[in-house]
Amino acid sequence: MKTTTIAVILAGCGNRDGSETHETLSALLAMDRRGINYKCFAPQGDFVVYDHSTMQPTDQKRNILIEAARLCRGDIQPLCAYKPSDFDALVLPGGMGAAQNWSTYAFEGKDMSVLPEIEKALIDTHNAGKPIGAMCIAPMILAKVFGSKHILLTLGSRCDTSEAAVSMGCRHKECPATEAVTDTENKIVTTPAYMVATHISQIFDGADKMIEQVQSLIR
Amino acid sequence: MKTTTIAVILAGCGNRDGSETHETLSALLAMDRRGINYKCFAPQGDFVVYDHSTMQPTDQKRNILIEAARLCRGDIQPLCAYKPSDFDALVLPGGMGAAQNWSTYAFEGKDMSVLPEIEKALIDTHNAGKPIGAMCIAPMILAKVFGSKHILLTLGSRCDTSEAAVSMGCRHKECPATEAVTDTENKIVTTPAYMVATHISQIFDGADKMIEQVQSLIR
Repeated sequence: MKTTTIAVILAGCGNRDGSETHETLSALLAMDRRGINYKCFAPQGDFVVYDHSTMQPTDQKRNILIEAARLCRGDIQPLCAYKPSDFDALVLPGGMGAAQNWSTYAFEGKDMSVLPEIEKALIDTHNAGKPIGAMCIAPMILAKVFGSKHILLTLGSRCDTSEAAVSMGCRHKECPATEAVTDTENKIVTTPAYMVATHISQIFDGADKMIEQVQSLIR
Repeated sequence: MKTTTIAVILAGCGNRDGSETHETLSALLAMDRRGINYKCFAPQGDFVVYDHSTMQPTDQKRNILIEAARLCRGDIQPLCAYKPSDFDALVLPGGMGAAQNWSTYAFEGKDMSVLPEIEKALIDTHNAGKPIGAMCIAPMILAKVFGSKHILLTLGSRCDTSEAAVSMGCRHKECPATEAVTDTENKIVTTPAYMVATHISQIFDGADKMIEQVQSLIR
């Protein structure tokens, strides 16, 4: 039987300016425990660095891919090399990098735009009939790209972010941190992670449910 | 019943110049799943940044504690604030930060020295009768500090690093990535992690065994 392989897109390394580290590692661990291979990608380009001991912005910039490499021991490719035909599914961990480095959601809310290479990766994956999983704030990227399809997603509890997703055309379902929401028709699975979680074990449980449901949607 | 709380010392964020991200998150997850609270600490001071997409050193420096904060959502204290009396045990994840930022093992091998505040934290914890867990290359710090006590530890397979530990007075026991080695008398538990592991799920299994054995040594 062919081994399942899932692509993961990263946004840096750190909850305030990159991919949330607990969420990313929980997704990778959930895949590995299920015998699923993963391969990490990241867009190029610089981002504004936040000091994670104070959560304040600094005047430094760093490269998204180079910092994301810290989460996968350097085994990472530029997102432009991603081909959906090489993978069975695509997963987006959360973290503010999704809202700042992949998109302008942090600055423009529902008027956000998405980095063209992120949008292309998502549309190509969806058009190839392959499932997409997303955690925490990353579902907002799906909301922008697939809102016109009225996708079902979760951002945890009803909040400003879930209202923004609804205003883009999405259907929002409340969900605890340890569970995931599946839009079977559109093959989209989301879990709220640190939108509502307080503990890393909840992050792992939600990531594991997301991966389980993504796996069940793979043809 | 009083909740168990374990202190974790970090060395940055990334396998090549800080705390290994998979190892750190696996240790935190293993604790949280067992209902153990954790609190992270890091020494102050700068370290040489490695580009994790090439694993080459750069001419940049970053602060150990500020980068380590990326692994614990900013909930971190300077190591000088660590008091063994507030905790039930101490855990050291691996990563090259242990060999470069906490000590000079990467440059001086068995002639290494250890940062005084790391050495003090370890000796104070040991003298308070509390267990210490360490992963991957971090047991070399214990080898330097406690070699004269002939501690039993693992660095995975027999290798130059295990030979260096033996030359410092330690007893080395070979161990697979998914297991841990306990020195009951000295209350030291070690797991080899990426000294021998090839997959993140092995890292979690080894971390979980380490935490289980640390927990069993808590009075």
